Amino acid sequence: MPAKDIYHNAVKQSLIKEGWTIFADPYRISYEDADLYADLAASRPLAAERQGIKIIVEIKSFVGRSPLYDFHNALGQYIFYRDLLSATAPSLQLYLAIDRTSHERIFFRPSVQLAIDRNAVKFFVINSQQEVIILWNPEINM
Amino acid sequence: MPAKDIYHNAVKQSLIKEGWTIFADPYRISYEDADLYADLAASRPLAAERQGIKIIVEIKSFVGRSPLYDFHNALGQYIFYRDLLSATAPSLQLYLAIDRTSHERIFFRPSVQLAIDRNAVKFFVINSQQEVIILWNPEINM
Repeated sequence: MPAKDIYHNAVKQSLIKEGWTIFADPYRISYEDADLYADLAASRPLAAERQGIKIIVEIKSFVGRSPLYDFHNALGQYIFYRDLLSATAPSLQLYLAIDRTSHERIFFRPSVQLAIDRNAVKFFVINSQQEVIILWNPEINM
Repeated sequence: MPAKDIYHNAVKQSLIKEGWTIFADPYRISYEDADLYADLAASRPLAAERQGIKIIVEIKSFVGRSPLYDFHNALGQYIFYRDLLSATAPSLQLYLAIDRTSHERIFFRPSVQLAIDRNAVKFFVINSQQEVIILWNPEINM
């Protein structure tokens, strides 16, 4: 199992405060030769749907040698995990979880926005001090 | 500029032997905030087209801590560079260049094949000892 990200507990608490139930920590993705772990799985009832919504969360701290290098690695992991999930558990939506400092420093960059748009990358942003979610992209209608 | 991959010269010689002209080494990709380098750019006349074909080549050796970790990083770099190229030089096709040992060890894995198919990743494979290209995916019709 991978080392836990520095924001692991902050992301978890932020989700719980919003009414999510953590149902896996980590969440195992098995597909043929691949046996991988995403950081968290969470579920929440939705008003409109009896089944509610389930998300898989991969937490990224972007503390590496360069922001764009960190970003393309995160993008590759996101797309690879999403491909494997679509083959094994297609009802689950994959979100990246990032801190607001990473959001401001990296996700506002035009090159990063281009790749996020073209690849339909879903993410949410937390304030890791206050342990609250401050942005969903796209919004989840509760 | 990034450190040169261990296969840099073998890839270059393999392309030249097949009739390609190297027109950039490295090839700079500039888009808004991003200033990045792909390893090579090469061109070749085609029988059917006066303009010929131009490709950008990113060389990957997969010598890191785990094959799937290496792969998702390469996938992210490929997709990010392809997104930036499509905004700046849309006639250029981006190929990954890999050695046949990486091809056999990594690209035959079902999880990797799934991601390559879903994301339409283009690549070619060299025999780095003989400095020849042994596979194009997809084929380039000369």
